[in-house]
Amino acid sequence: PIVLSTQDPDEIIATVKAISPTFGGINLEDISAPKCVYIERRLKEELSIPVFHDDQHGTSIVVLAALYNACRLTNRDLKQLKVVISGTGAAGSNIARLLHKYGVRHIYGYNKLGIVRKTNYSSYNFVEKELLDEGILLNPKENLKTLEDLITGSDVFIGVSAPNLLQTSSIQKMNRNPFVFAMANPTPEINYEEAIAGGAKVVGTGRSDYPNQINNVLAFPGLFRGVLDARIKVITDEMKIACALAIANVIKQEELRPDYVIPSPFDKRVVEAIKKKLKVKIDVEGSILYLKIKTPSIKALRKRIPKVKNIQLKGIPGIERVLVKKEGDEYVLYTQGSNLREVFKIEGVDTTRTITNNIIEI
Amino acid sequence: PIVLSTQDPDEIIATVKAISPTFGGINLEDISAPKCVYIERRLKEELSIPVFHDDQHGTSIVVLAALYNACRLTNRDLKQLKVVISGTGAAGSNIARLLHKYGVRHIYGYNKLGIVRKTNYSSYNFVEKELLDEGILLNPKENLKTLEDLITGSDVFIGVSAPNLLQTSSIQKMNRNPFVFAMANPTPEINYEEAIAGGAKVVGTGRSDYPNQINNVLAFPGLFRGVLDARIKVITDEMKIACALAIANVIKQEELRPDYVIPSPFDKRVVEAIKKKLKVKIDVEGSILYLKIKTPSIKALRKRIPKVKNIQLKGIPGIERVLVKKEGDEYVLYTQGSNLREVFKIEGVDTTRTITNNIIEI
Repeated sequence: PIVLSTQDPDEIIATVKAISPTFGGINLEDISAPKCVYIERRLKEELSIPVFHDDQHGTSIVVLAALYNACRLTNRDLKQLKVVISGTGAAGSNIARLLHKYGVRHIYGYNKLGIVRKTNYSSYNFVEKELLDEGILLNPKENLKTLEDLITGSDVFIGVSAPNLLQTSSIQKMNRNPFVFAMANPTPEINYEEAIAGGAKVVGTGRSDYPNQINNVLAFPGLFRGVLDARIKVITDEMKIACALAIANVIKQEELRPDYVIPSPFDKRVVEAIKKKLKVKIDVEGSILYLKIKTPSIKALRKRIPKVKNIQLKGIPGIERVLVKKEGDEYVLYTQGSNLREVFKIEGVDTTRTITNNIIEI
Repeated sequence: PIVLSTQDPDEIIATVKAISPTFGGINLEDISAPKCVYIERRLKEELSIPVFHDDQHGTSIVVLAALYNACRLTNRDLKQLKVVISGTGAAGSNIARLLHKYGVRHIYGYNKLGIVRKTNYSSYNFVEKELLDEGILLNPKENLKTLEDLITGSDVFIGVSAPNLLQTSSIQKMNRNPFVFAMANPTPEINYEEAIAGGAKVVGTGRSDYPNQINNVLAFPGLFRGVLDARIKVITDEMKIACALAIANVIKQEELRPDYVIPSPFDKRVVEAIKKKLKVKIDVEGSILYLKIKTPSIKALRKRIPKVKNIQLKGIPGIERVLVKKEGDEYVLYTQGSNLREVFKIEGVDTTRTITNNIIEI
């Protein structure tokens, strides 16, 4: 780990960029929201190595894995469940985003200001505003006032916020057999025993002395090993979901129990499973493909791919990311996305000449 | 090693400062003069961990060690010898500086612009100007025109410049039994064989396939080990000289030969010898002493040590370095120098209360 003596977002970005040639990937740790989101986005745009913020994505991957297995165990459909997330910082905001990407459509938020709702819009930071703007967090009814009001009739409580927010009686107001992941550390939003007493079917915390520890270390070692092996330049939401499912499926159906929905951080099968899953995803689905086009100028680049606008391929569905880097005297366009071969065929780019590592040089 | 993606001096400084909490010391490599001098000086001033630029100091330490042993072998006094240095970059400028500090008083310089002399003053960078300003490089007679003119009648040629500048006949113009260290790599200023043919008594190069290889790796591993063990915050010229003598004395008097004046880079005794020498130097000579004075403001600090001017103890002889750092709400003054106990007794500071690691807290 490289420890930084600054907390200024632009200084952090400048420093990480300056030392980046030393590294195959960047795993950011311990940066608070919303600046962690700003820093990660800028670095993802400006560097051509994978950048990952563990507090956001590590947590959301492991939470998705745990929820996926809780559903496998109880034969429920995660996408139909009503989820309440307490905390909209680095972890909470990204858990909402990844669950939504996975297909969960009923997610509500709660934070220091109370229930997250559009009437408080101006009080939120840009990360929280985006969650409302993009419909990731739903706007709850006005008559709901407290966290207890909000979780009434919900199926999942996810806490990444503060100690002792809920009691046994709160859990009793949730739907039957709810899942409670209370991850405030060291004191969770509700104790393991109280959540069980309230009727929770599956309970997880951030603590190693209780069952179902939600620990980031389950995600990033395997994810980085897989990403580096496959020469992936950008970690996409699809990869994070693949990673979550790989972690979940380490536990066989017949092994699943309410107190065992997530593998132990010491389970050596996890890294291998994630690695394999990422490789299969890339090989089979062809979701990673780099298009390397050398041109003498950005203008010439735009001519070759007419839809390139403002050095972004935003108009073209399927392309997740575009990076233009000056390499010597030439501009090189790197792209990455799903079904890029199809996309570029439409654009009139010959993608049959794949060279190595999914890089097409034209 | 941490590789940087910038060559801008201020960006390098900002980056090194930002990542410095990760490290016990900083060894800079591969930065050209004069910006390496600017960068190193700023970092030494602004960081409280040892900073060392290998291309400057590593080279000068090993050259001093080799010269010291060449003199031991031939029973000459290094301080009396006439030295010509070809090259005034990172290595050359610092070799001149360290030899002068050691006591050599007849040093002349040569570089791309020809013989270094005051009449060309305006063409030099600030590092070269300082060498003339401080009388480290002497101003040669106007009738001397070429490098061959300059080395005529000299005892030592040190090359850290360009290939093939000298011939056998050039060496013949030097004083009897001269020392020739021709370290341009891979092709030296004069080949080993030609230098010997010209009458050189001791010849060294930068190459591993000839005797007396001058290699920086002889200096920095032992120096950093010793500096870290002794919790030294600034590497001084005295320490570099101590380090050079430690390297030299690894070879016993009876083992010295013209083709063996410097230990092999693989000689395991070197690190141990430097480490021991630095420890003895600090313990016996008391040259490292930190004065840690906590005060609520810089103004209060100045009151306690009246001669502190502009946060510098420049007026007090014996003090080599002062660093004022804000630690929490207090300002802490760190100083380092020779005979600090004596110095501070005069200043009315009670230094009997040394706490640990030569740190006096008052």
